[in-house]
Amino acid sequence: MSTTLDIHIYTDPDFRQSKDFADQRVLDILGEFEGLGSRITLSFSHDETALNAALADAEVLILVGKLDIADVAARAPRLRWIHITSAGVDRIPLDRLPAEVLVTNAKGNHEVRAREFSMTALLMLNNRLPDFVTQQREKHWAQTAIEPIDGKTVVILGMGALGSAAAEAAKRLNLRVIGISRSGRDHALADVSLPQSRLKEALAGADFLLITLPLTADTRDIVGEAELAAMPARAGVINIGRGPVLDVAALAKRLEAGQLRGAVLDVFPEEPLAADSPYWTTRNLIVTPHSGLYDADYVPRCLRFFFANVERYLDDRPLENRVDTSLGY
Amino acid sequence: MSTTLDIHIYTDPDFRQSKDFADQRVLDILGEFEGLGSRITLSFSHDETALNAALADAEVLILVGKLDIADVAARAPRLRWIHITSAGVDRIPLDRLPAEVLVTNAKGNHEVRAREFSMTALLMLNNRLPDFVTQQREKHWAQTAIEPIDGKTVVILGMGALGSAAAEAAKRLNLRVIGISRSGRDHALADVSLPQSRLKEALAGADFLLITLPLTADTRDIVGEAELAAMPARAGVINIGRGPVLDVAALAKRLEAGQLRGAVLDVFPEEPLAADSPYWTTRNLIVTPHSGLYDADYVPRCLRFFFANVERYLDDRPLENRVDTSLGY
Repeated sequence: MSTTLDIHIYTDPDFRQSKDFADQRVLDILGEFEGLGSRITLSFSHDETALNAALADAEVLILVGKLDIADVAARAPRLRWIHITSAGVDRIPLDRLPAEVLVTNAKGNHEVRAREFSMTALLMLNNRLPDFVTQQREKHWAQTAIEPIDGKTVVILGMGALGSAAAEAAKRLNLRVIGISRSGRDHALADVSLPQSRLKEALAGADFLLITLPLTADTRDIVGEAELAAMPARAGVINIGRGPVLDVAALAKRLEAGQLRGAVLDVFPEEPLAADSPYWTTRNLIVTPHSGLYDADYVPRCLRFFFANVERYLDDRPLENRVDTSLGY
Repeated sequence: MSTTLDIHIYTDPDFRQSKDFADQRVLDILGEFEGLGSRITLSFSHDETALNAALADAEVLILVGKLDIADVAARAPRLRWIHITSAGVDRIPLDRLPAEVLVTNAKGNHEVRAREFSMTALLMLNNRLPDFVTQQREKHWAQTAIEPIDGKTVVILGMGALGSAAAEAAKRLNLRVIGISRSGRDHALADVSLPQSRLKEALAGADFLLITLPLTADTRDIVGEAELAAMPARAGVINIGRGPVLDVAALAKRLEAGQLRGAVLDVFPEEPLAADSPYWTTRNLIVTPHSGLYDADYVPRCLRFFFANVERYLDDRPLENRVDTSLGY
């Protein structure tokens, strides 16, 4: 039995970001933390067979990507902490984890990007880029007048870390912000704060809907046909949260019918989009391939956060970014 | 002979904005100026035959669109003032006008839009929208990391009314601004101000080139192959000035070769783009059909500005927005 902390890093071979978590890169970042290397034992796996062998000893598991850990208690008897390298934790079944296993995530690692991408997408919608990109595809030139964005209304659905960053972007553009959250509690950056039960009512006056929600049992399909139908035809939709929160088929139908002005979607229910997906060519729909919040420094920043948390763990201090496994975020 | 001021409004039947200057709309705006209606006689024409008949009496001509006025002195002996309803005055041959004819333009009418559209285009380039739109056309999903825009460098070519608005947008995004003008005189919003002779040198360190120049004999093709070749491959190009200022063929070649990251072009040497133009499908080139600076209130604002100038003219006060016909802006 080792006197060091056993940390295992599993990178899901099918996950797009796994290549950015190369073993050497992890070791390089660990090297920045003086003295930490001698207090831990780091092991790596890149497929489930190797993972299974490693789980017997691991006390801490870093998970890059998806994992079905149904029988984790049997397979990893010493496991006490799983760190997930994204903000969304929907790629593992939290409800099947033993109660004594802590879960942490990468919340807050996306805020600079969330602010800049929200500002980009809001300006794109207001400046008719969805129309222009569609017209360009059709080789059609139609000059279009544009109203100033100043004073328009954005409904931000989800007022957590991403929603707060989006609200900051919106205030910089001088938008009126209606923030929707589970509680409906007042938020410093929202002009109006409402609970989810009043979403449809808020959407009736929206110029933009900006979705930042994580995927949980409660948020799946929260923006469906009825919610989209409540929006005025001048409005546009942005999703930087998780794909299944929004009924994209219903959205596409309204876009094709000119019942909504445009959409900028960074996430989809199935990613990557299949080559034959209808959404590649939906009118006034712009696809940004799950890139809006993904910056070049994401992985090193993510690893630095993790190792700082490992120091807290070793020193019996409380971990940062604990996930409430019953809420799912 | 009338004791009122003869004002004639000619709307070029081939000009895209002419429909927005409908006779009744002009009269409605005139109605907002108390007492002015009785001091002027307003006439309208929508083709050259009707225009020719009206020119004999007109002292003031509002020109919406293009006009070849080579023999204007003979055709319009009483003409003293031409007002052009755009900021660029390249649609009429200024050098063939009699010296006693004043020219005014719509400078300053574009500033709110110029600021918002510059911000939009800069953010789109930084957020890889040109790549994403190209990938969408190819039904290809490739997640891409994005660096923050903060602290990057924009070269703004042309520091007049549009350039100043663009510089304001850039400073709001925390960019470093290199302003290029004929004189190279210091500009309050530029971190560095340089004369046109140092353009290539400035471009070597640019993340973005934003062109706002009017079209004159001096500015035609000012951004050509050599200037584009001076830019780093990470850089992107925006044109909100006039199309012929930029060699689009040379730009397209570099975009196709991956030697520049992207472009957002609002203007082209020939507009509208022909259905068989290669620029509809150039990699990483986004076309916004001369719409970036065109807002819904443009025409009423433009007419209000004109009638206020008419009051100045009647009261022998100096006109605003005089164009220097030797410089061409």
